[in-house]
Amino acid sequence: MHEHARIAAFFAPLSAGEAGAFHLKDDAAALTPPTGQQIVLTTDSVIEDVHLPVGATAAQFAHKLIRRNLSDLAAMGATPWRYLLNIHLPKRIDDDWLKEFSATLAQLQQHFGMVLVGGDSTGNDRIHLTATLIGLVKIPLTRAGAKAGDGIYVTGRIGDAAMALKNLKGAAPEVLARYYQPEPRIAVGQKLHGVATAAIDISDGLVQDLGQLCAASGVGAVIDVATIPFSPDGDIKTMLTGGDDYELLFTAASEPKGFDVTITRIGSIEAGSGVKVLGYDGPVEGYSH
Amino acid sequence: MHEHARIAAFFAPLSAGEAGAFHLKDDAAALTPPTGQQIVLTTDSVIEDVHLPVGATAAQFAHKLIRRNLSDLAAMGATPWRYLLNIHLPKRIDDDWLKEFSATLAQLQQHFGMVLVGGDSTGNDRIHLTATLIGLVKIPLTRAGAKAGDGIYVTGRIGDAAMALKNLKGAAPEVLARYYQPEPRIAVGQKLHGVATAAIDISDGLVQDLGQLCAASGVGAVIDVATIPFSPDGDIKTMLTGGDDYELLFTAASEPKGFDVTITRIGSIEAGSGVKVLGYDGPVEGYSH
Repeated sequence: MHEHARIAAFFAPLSAGEAGAFHLKDDAAALTPPTGQQIVLTTDSVIEDVHLPVGATAAQFAHKLIRRNLSDLAAMGATPWRYLLNIHLPKRIDDDWLKEFSATLAQLQQHFGMVLVGGDSTGNDRIHLTATLIGLVKIPLTRAGAKAGDGIYVTGRIGDAAMALKNLKGAAPEVLARYYQPEPRIAVGQKLHGVATAAIDISDGLVQDLGQLCAASGVGAVIDVATIPFSPDGDIKTMLTGGDDYELLFTAASEPKGFDVTITRIGSIEAGSGVKVLGYDGPVEGYSH
Repeated sequence: MHEHARIAAFFAPLSAGEAGAFHLKDDAAALTPPTGQQIVLTTDSVIEDVHLPVGATAAQFAHKLIRRNLSDLAAMGATPWRYLLNIHLPKRIDDDWLKEFSATLAQLQQHFGMVLVGGDSTGNDRIHLTATLIGLVKIPLTRAGAKAGDGIYVTGRIGDAAMALKNLKGAAPEVLARYYQPEPRIAVGQKLHGVATAAIDISDGLVQDLGQLCAASGVGAVIDVATIPFSPDGDIKTMLTGGDDYELLFTAASEPKGFDVTITRIGSIEAGSGVKVLGYDGPVEGYSH
């Protein structure tokens, strides 16, 4: 199929919920955000052989692409709203691949409440996808509000994705799913307004991302390995520094309550700078793609 | 330099005009568009060896990337406002390249009134850049309003970029500049509200893009080769179908007046469908990247 025919067949139906997407047939989208809300913008890419292994399925590409971007909206406390896609594909990609990819996007749109409003497509030597998500929020959470004495909390479990990546052929299905279909903590982020003093999603590694939050807030942190909800059977260094979990890390002055997701205190904010890790002697540095 | 250091050195300064960019240090940007305006979103990529030849300079990459996106805002009648960048670069790219690239972005920002608010960066096998632009408009121009009897108009000159692409080593500097630094017709687009019935930018080729406008409007078109302001010394087929000029094509019920740019009538909208080209016998089809 020609490019225009592919857009019409596989992607234009994903824009049905937004008249300002002009059926993906115009030069740009024109949107009217709800009054009283800020728009939150984030963009991230998924490249074959960089962020996903060669041979990953169309569904796996769609999940990883959308979910890692959603995680950034979650860290701002935002609600997903609209998105754009840049789809750059090698010639070997056929219509079956696009059918699976767009069907997965349709599921993700429905589940997270988003509508496709634009993008571009072109040829490339390997699968290279970018999504730009637009969320809505009244007052955004940021990384810059942590204060000495705050507790440091994480959602879910840390290290699954990094352990999966070390053993893509042999890891348990539950651990593999955490790598291929991370769960963006949208509902948690939305409820953190008035609770968290700062928040970040763990995409580059627990220690590195906590370090970013500390730098933005002008504080230091101490975490205790014994309290971190690690992946079973993982090695500590990989789990402290491995990326791709997309759990939320946040700071709060008092114990957060009433969340549907497991939230664990792993340490405290203190005056100063940098991240101290109790119970681990080796050097720690985050993962960078 | 490490990725974070590069962002801090070369890109964070470009976000100085927007507090909601959080110095490019947070998970996402949070923006408040002016009331009474719609936000216009467009995204396009520039890939080495696809959209620009291997060996193009950092400045040429910056110009092409931003200007081709600006052209889409122009076609909607929008005013540039904010943008995001996905910067995916091979290891050979050094800090000098980034310095030239970001300095060119700074010039473009100042000239067109935009501020960088976010993005991502990662490694890739070749230079692969994406920009997502956010414009503002009260009422967008679209492709879907042309009516039988309207005149068909183009800005500037058609075919320079396609002729340059055929002869990148030997074309005249003025023609080469049109390929490397196309002029987005922002000011024209802004003045077309109430004048144009439909508009599109010529990115894929005059005949193909006019065909898109006709399809969106449910009309046909006839244009006359003798009236088209072609590049000097070009061949007609290349100029009718070559892309990358980024001139505006629009339809209007009466002669548009008072523009600073040369605007030429090249034909008429009629009932029916498809594009007829008077004065040229060969087959015509647009250029697709």
